[in-house]
Amino acid sequence: MITIYGDSISGNCHKVKFVADHLGLAYRWIETSVVRRETRTPEFLSINPSGQVPAIVLADGRLLSQSNAIILYLAEGSSLIPADAYDHALMFQWLFWEQYNHEPTIATRRFHKFYLGKPDEEINPALKPNGDAALLRMENHLSAQTYFVGGKLSLADVALVAYTRFAHEGGFDLSSHPEIRAWIARVEKDLKIEPVAAPGSGS
Amino acid sequence: MITIYGDSISGNCHKVKFVADHLGLAYRWIETSVVRRETRTPEFLSINPSGQVPAIVLADGRLLSQSNAIILYLAEGSSLIPADAYDHALMFQWLFWEQYNHEPTIATRRFHKFYLGKPDEEINPALKPNGDAALLRMENHLSAQTYFVGGKLSLADVALVAYTRFAHEGGFDLSSHPEIRAWIARVEKDLKIEPVAAPGSGS
Repeated sequence: MITIYGDSISGNCHKVKFVADHLGLAYRWIETSVVRRETRTPEFLSINPSGQVPAIVLADGRLLSQSNAIILYLAEGSSLIPADAYDHALMFQWLFWEQYNHEPTIATRRFHKFYLGKPDEEINPALKPNGDAALLRMENHLSAQTYFVGGKLSLADVALVAYTRFAHEGGFDLSSHPEIRAWIARVEKDLKIEPVAAPGSGS
Repeated sequence: MITIYGDSISGNCHKVKFVADHLGLAYRWIETSVVRRETRTPEFLSINPSGQVPAIVLADGRLLSQSNAIILYLAEGSSLIPADAYDHALMFQWLFWEQYNHEPTIATRRFHKFYLGKPDEEINPALKPNGDAALLRMENHLSAQTYFVGGKLSLADVALVAYTRFAHEGGFDLSSHPEIRAWIARVEKDLKIEPVAAPGSGS
């Protein structure tokens, strides 16, 4: 059985849980809090020297880190990875875009604002416009697509939905992005996960 | 034949050239300068709406962007992608780490310092320690490995060497990192590319 070291407030860690649950994989989850600095203890650093979650330990004791590398490993051979060569490449395009353009803006601003409780003026001012630009690119893409790649659920959706559904906690407004909101609901339903109670959702 | 839109000073673009040349692929290179804002012209944005290089256009006209997604597409089925499932996963781990921890620090500081000519005090002060940490992680990894994954050249080396060989242009000192320097020389030789004339190299 694999062991997942994860933080329940981290979208990067949610990706791993979503894929494992969707595919019915057996795993042990070890809660490891970033805010409580449990990723910096000697014990954790002896498991993952990079001090990051998520990380998984395979049945044979070997380590794997980086959320998108982990979900690619877990989903190998499943319907979450497109078979068509070009769709396969587009999935990678979105996975790298997520880690380069989306997570460092939207997830980072959420962490500083929602979890560290910083006032806006103490948060890197570039995060808001850069996050807004990432969301606009997603909205435009989804205006002609039901899912990010190939018309069906793939790892691209799993990786992108993880933090997009918490974008409001980072001060990002999805009210003018109806395509993103519909896509979040679609992916949450596919993954059988509880919708996030966003402002104005009435829940 | 594929068309590569690339900037000759960009390590991300070099990755694509290195893989295409190493595998003997036929391509047309269209020089597209970021500094001269050629990635922001209406013509280029009509080809790649994200305004980024590298981007490739396949023979049938379809677009692919994100350097690591492009090299994965070009190298499919080649020896640059490890066959073993765990090594395959480790390659992805390093590719995502490169785009999340390495490129945003080392390549970004090089761009601001070397190409935009900014004095150090005008460059984000986090880039130096974060880039140093990335280099230290590489040095430690390479102290027990000749290549990043599986004992032979893979896309992980191609992606990581692209900016590491220019780290000195970003103000990073490789003199205390002999393992990295030996690995750069090894990978440059494997890829048959001209070594970079680093300070003190005598060239």
